[in-house]
Amino acid sequence: MATARALDVIGDWWSLLIVRDALNGIRRFNEFERSLGLAKNILSSRLKRLVEHGILETVPASDGSAYSEYAPTEKGLKLFPVVIALAQWGTEFLFEPSEPISCPLDVDHHQPLRRIKVQANDGRELGPADIVSITR
Amino acid sequence: MATARALDVIGDWWSLLIVRDALNGIRRFNEFERSLGLAKNILSSRLKRLVEHGILETVPASDGSAYSEYAPTEKGLKLFPVVIALAQWGTEFLFEPSEPISCPLDVDHHQPLRRIKVQANDGRELGPADIVSITR
Repeated sequence: MATARALDVIGDWWSLLIVRDALNGIRRFNEFERSLGLAKNILSSRLKRLVEHGILETVPASDGSAYSEYAPTEKGLKLFPVVIALAQWGTEFLFEPSEPISCPLDVDHHQPLRRIKVQANDGRELGPADIVSITR
Repeated sequence: MATARALDVIGDWWSLLIVRDALNGIRRFNEFERSLGLAKNILSSRLKRLVEHGILETVPASDGSAYSEYAPTEKGLKLFPVVIALAQWGTEFLFEPSEPISCPLDVDHHQPLRRIKVQANDGRELGPADIVSITR
């Protein structure tokens, strides 16, 4: 059930794009709005849902202004590998060779990240056939 | 754009659950139907979309019967880390301590998998703050 529950809690694709923006440091309603081009009522309901599920939390504005900000919780930060795995898959399969490369880079060396792998506890890389059954 | 494109191509949560089932070895329409409890018309449209996007392909039935089967392509198999990352996140955050543990196990030792990490090319584990910007 773990995958189905995860998908149920995240809710829809927009929510995961909001989480991605939050991991990128976006905090304010109008910044999410600008980044995602999403209607205010939809963005508002998705942010509310993410707060209800403890993925984001509202915090006082970092500059002391009256705006509240949305920051990822520990639970939200732990979605980082999910977002990066999706971004790597998208980068590998959904760009034409002629398009500008779009892949996540690390800050220190501006290098592409290591490809995300599934590994056994002893470090062996695993494929789908090496798993008992992906939990539902 | 890589994350947004990935989400756009996968389409919706049902599609990712279909991919999870396909990675678990499910191949036939009625098996997906039973596993997911999904209406035939919805399942049919999602399978069609996954085939159009080259994530699944139709193959002759493995037992020589007239049913066609849906098998993951290379592109579909590469969604494995995405599915496992989601399953691990769901396992960590969405189960009560009293519930039976539900986490992906490897075949050889029936052990939980290593937690999926984001790593720089030199192997350092990275968090959201170590990334230039997650590609949109």
